[in-house]
Amino acid sequence: MTSSDVLKSIADTLEARREASSQTSYVASLFHKGEDAILKKVAEEAAETLMASKDGNKLQIVRETADLWFHTMVLLAWHGLRPEDVLMELHRREGISGLDEKASRPPKP
Amino acid sequence: MTSSDVLKSIADTLEARREASSQTSYVASLFHKGEDAILKKVAEEAAETLMASKDGNKLQIVRETADLWFHTMVLLAWHGLRPEDVLMELHRREGISGLDEKASRPPKP
Amino acid sequence: MTSSDVLKSIADTLEARREASSQTSYVASLFHKGEDAILKKVAEEAAETLMASKDGNKLQIVRETADLWFHTMVLLAWHGLRPEDVLMELHRREGISGLDEKASRPPKP
Amino acid sequence: MTSSDVLKSIADTLEARREASSQTSYVASLFHKGEDAILKKVAEEAAETLMASKDGNKLQIVRETADLWFHTMVLLAWHGLRPEDVLMELHRREGISGLDEKASRPPKP
Repeated sequence: MTSSDVLKSIADTLEARREASSQTSYVASLFHKGEDAILKKVAEEAAETLMASKDGNKLQIVRETADLWFHTMVLLAWHGLRPEDVLMELHRREGISGLDEKASRPPKP
Repeated sequence: MTSSDVLKSIADTLEARREASSQTSYVASLFHKGEDAILKKVAEEAAETLMASKDGNKLQIVRETADLWFHTMVLLAWHGLRPEDVLMELHRREGISGLDEKASRPPKP
Repeated sequence: MTSSDVLKSIADTLEARREASSQTSYVASLFHKGEDAILKKVAEEAAETLMASKDGNKLQIVRETADLWFHTMVLLAWHGLRPEDVLMELHRREGISGLDEKASRPPKP
Repeated sequence: MTSSDVLKSIADTLEARREASSQTSYVASLFHKGEDAILKKVAEEAAETLMASKDGNKLQIVRETADLWFHTMVLLAWHGLRPEDVLMELHRREGISGLDEKASRPPKP
């Protein structure tokens, strides 16, 4: 299974879980609680990624980044979006200007 | 180009940029400023993802999530890690228990 | 000058600066950029407080907490609120149940 | 009771709770879990302040800012610091250059 398949497979399962029972599925429970609960998890996992980095714990950095990506995928699914949309945006930027695409954008306000 | 290739290609370029000039490359400049500057960007992009979600702006959600994933990849590169490490962790969890792997883990302290 | 006066005095000045020129005043410039710019600063200062704590740098913890409180006061002013509103809420909770008021609230969703 | 007294009173109680039982006191339980648990709460309350602001809910903004200030005070207590240290820093900045002190500081890296 290629890494691309991993994100697609997770996104497929996320969509399937939207209608599942909150009692047996963590994701269904998160969808049921709603947008703010999902956003809290995104913020929490971002904070834990920061802490893992400051601790210099590589296993923990991978684990927390996985948690962060996973919960952003739950957020995407909440909005009817897919990880492919994000990958396409990253690919588009790379095509325009490589990794320094941000430098060529006007600064955000 | 598959989506998997996008992440790998970005990671390859990130590694190549570590030694580039800070004056021409946004990424080189970020590596030069160091870990705290990278972490600030991760926190900032997480906050912007939250705001885009609350605004219900789908294009902006994709854009900010791309910014967030991109800067977590800069952080991974800072620690000598790759997106494949994160994808492997996500794949491992899916293999064990599907998307609800978190539910089967002991709660974090 | 008591510490209470410090917060009130800052809040008074924040209100006065809303109409000042963006070119000479950092706060006027922040008000001019709007809510999202203020929220980004709150998120950024929260992240810097986390980093200062992980670094165990007490002077930096005080400095970043001051930055965080200051920018939350800018946010309060943006919404026509005052630090006294926050202090009154804290005082109210203390009166009900001491510092463990949260424990007696129903859990947030 | 002046607002200054509120912060001092909370800080006094926080110090007293450090040795209390985790089973009866939310604060004692947080101290027992340690620095990372406190930092997670700071990040979580900052995120909830952002969400309350985007919702335009003033009562919720006050409530979440109170939560945020409260948990930064727990963090200060964890490091043996007091809210007075933060108020003194804010007062010092005001004395030097008013609210726009940040503008006169060199930019952070």
